[in-house]
Amino acid sequence: MKFDLLAKDNHSNARAGLIYTDHGVIETPIFMPVGTAGTVKGVHQRELENDIKAQIILGNTYHLYLRPGLEVIREAGGLHKFNGWNHPLLTDSGGYQVYSLADNRKIKEEGVAFRSHIDGSKHIFTPESAIDIQRVIGADIIMAFDECTPYPCDYKYARKSIEMTHRWLKRCCDQFDSGEGLYGYSQTLFPIVQGSVYKDLRIRSAEAIASFGREGNAIGGLSVGEPAELMYEMTGYVTEILPWEKPRYLMGVGTPANILECIALGVDMFDCVMPTRNARNGMLFTRNGIINIRNEKWKKDFSPIDEESEIYADLHYSKSYLRHLMINKELLGAQIATIHNLYFYLWLVKEARKKISEGTFNQWKNEMVPKVSARL
Amino acid sequence: MKFDLLAKDNHSNARAGLIYTDHGVIETPIFMPVGTAGTVKGVHQRELENDIKAQIILGNTYHLYLRPGLEVIREAGGLHKFNGWNHPLLTDSGGYQVYSLADNRKIKEEGVAFRSHIDGSKHIFTPESAIDIQRVIGADIIMAFDECTPYPCDYKYARKSIEMTHRWLKRCCDQFDSGEGLYGYSQTLFPIVQGSVYKDLRIRSAEAIASFGREGNAIGGLSVGEPAELMYEMTGYVTEILPWEKPRYLMGVGTPANILECIALGVDMFDCVMPTRNARNGMLFTRNGIINIRNEKWKKDFSPIDEESEIYADLHYSKSYLRHLMINKELLGAQIATIHNLYFYLWLVKEARKKISEGTFNQWKNEMVPKVSARL
Repeated sequence: MKFDLLAKDNHSNARAGLIYTDHGVIETPIFMPVGTAGTVKGVHQRELENDIKAQIILGNTYHLYLRPGLEVIREAGGLHKFNGWNHPLLTDSGGYQVYSLADNRKIKEEGVAFRSHIDGSKHIFTPESAIDIQRVIGADIIMAFDECTPYPCDYKYARKSIEMTHRWLKRCCDQFDSGEGLYGYSQTLFPIVQGSVYKDLRIRSAEAIASFGREGNAIGGLSVGEPAELMYEMTGYVTEILPWEKPRYLMGVGTPANILECIALGVDMFDCVMPTRNARNGMLFTRNGIINIRNEKWKKDFSPIDEESEIYADLHYSKSYLRHLMINKELLGAQIATIHNLYFYLWLVKEARKKISEGTFNQWKNEMVPKVSARL
Repeated sequence: MKFDLLAKDNHSNARAGLIYTDHGVIETPIFMPVGTAGTVKGVHQRELENDIKAQIILGNTYHLYLRPGLEVIREAGGLHKFNGWNHPLLTDSGGYQVYSLADNRKIKEEGVAFRSHIDGSKHIFTPESAIDIQRVIGADIIMAFDECTPYPCDYKYARKSIEMTHRWLKRCCDQFDSGEGLYGYSQTLFPIVQGSVYKDLRIRSAEAIASFGREGNAIGGLSVGEPAELMYEMTGYVTEILPWEKPRYLMGVGTPANILECIALGVDMFDCVMPTRNARNGMLFTRNGIINIRNEKWKKDFSPIDEESEIYADLHYSKSYLRHLMINKELLGAQIATIHNLYFYLWLVKEARKKISEGTFNQWKNEMVPKVSARL
């Protein structure tokens, strides 16, 4: 992996760059659609490419490990081959899902024991096994196995937790560096800064993580329920420390406004289930604000879903029709809304990138944040 | 509407023709995907056009009347405008759904009173209102309001029922002929032959229906649970009577084998929920037989879903991946399987049409019937 920084905004820490992987180049800042079980729900791979113009998508290690399982993915030749997405992929380490989804989880120094939320079967994830599993899945960017603390989190617990996360990171790096990819292309490992909402812990963790000298770095444990201002504050402390010349990935963030604010803080990569999950409930993000398409207000609005868009789903279908599909729980409603939201998220980061290059990012960001946050 | 008969098979009653409507030409024999509530579940309109190559789709009057309701459809300018399908459309009369879905239905000479399966609200469909509703929906081909008898059905009940269906047809025709389409293009009304599985009733009904001299005719009340042989027998009696020079539509049929056998009997148009509904449960129809993609057998089959196909969904995704999506109840699984099945159904009738023109239909049909019925 290689990262080229191309431009920096004069009035914020926003940057524009290029990440080179063996599966293609990623323009940053970038939003990565979440493809939990190897599929972005309701979206064909060619729609991701041609309509949404996704450059990299996520897979979840926890889900893929349970289903279809490593044997199938290995025999398929990795996740790219299995799901037919021949562009960059990133996998999380499975940690977050173990904490949020699995049953009976027990965190020890060795790793985390848990029961599958699907069939109750017993499993253990360790830093080493999380790396091994991600070798099999074969994403271009893989994540360290960490503990993601909840919000709120006791200071003492958070301090102990980052110490373990740092020890786990050492084990992840040793495991990663002693092996190699299974399918003939490179993988890279990103470590994750934790530290809850405590400034000193965030700084300490960022310094520890930076000292590992990996090719990119991530910020975890935010957007877990804390106020947005606290998230921005923590992100700001961390981006000040994480090396300038490497990509920074803020995990699980967020709303369009969150993304713009965090681009301004120097973040390059984002992922979040919000555009996909909320789409399935009828929430549309647009450059003029947020639409709940189920509202009576749209019942007879026969205008296109988004006249300012350029894609089929936005131009071909009307708000009235999409509302009808949503009220009827029709599959096509979830499909259209998901494509719309992901296209908008990708448009937003592309536009941010353009503004950074033009030197007008910060002003544009300050205009856009209230606009994209309004309720229409 | 105009119907041109282009070719007739020498060894069966199969025919190839063209139906001209104001929304385009339909090549017969044709299969019509079912778009119950104004959407073919899980399929974008452009996928219907470009991948599946559908030429006409169905809407269900009962569903559309309840949701989004006539006011919305009228203000949209009809269903074509509402759902963005700018090709031929056919609507059933609502009768079948009233009998199969609605609660507390009471059939009287005047019409049918029922309660909505959605909210329990009270409604009445009469022959006149069924025509008026279909004027508002604005399909190119609309259906008469009939009574669809169940199977089995008492002879006496079936006899009384066709008499009422014929009286209702008179009222439908009077209502239809005294009005006109609301949106500037032509609509045509097809009457429906009933008579359960009784030869004399089927013949009597077919003669009565033919005497109305409409532009096309339909056969209803079959594929409701009776053995396939009985369905073929009844269809054969009816196609002998229905006028040669007009299209014949066999409602709600069927499996690939059913369709081939009924093309041989002189049927031109088909619709059925089977390719769409069964797709959502993981059943794939192929030219080599029927696949249950959920079976363990396909777990590590990384070959394309259908190598003999020419469309993206069949060639881009593997059986193993589709199985994974189905087992995980992922939306994309239903989407892929639905596109596959509908493409196959449209391929099948197109191939039948070609064979009819080449004069080899009957032999090909006899080879295909066991093949498409096999379990893989």
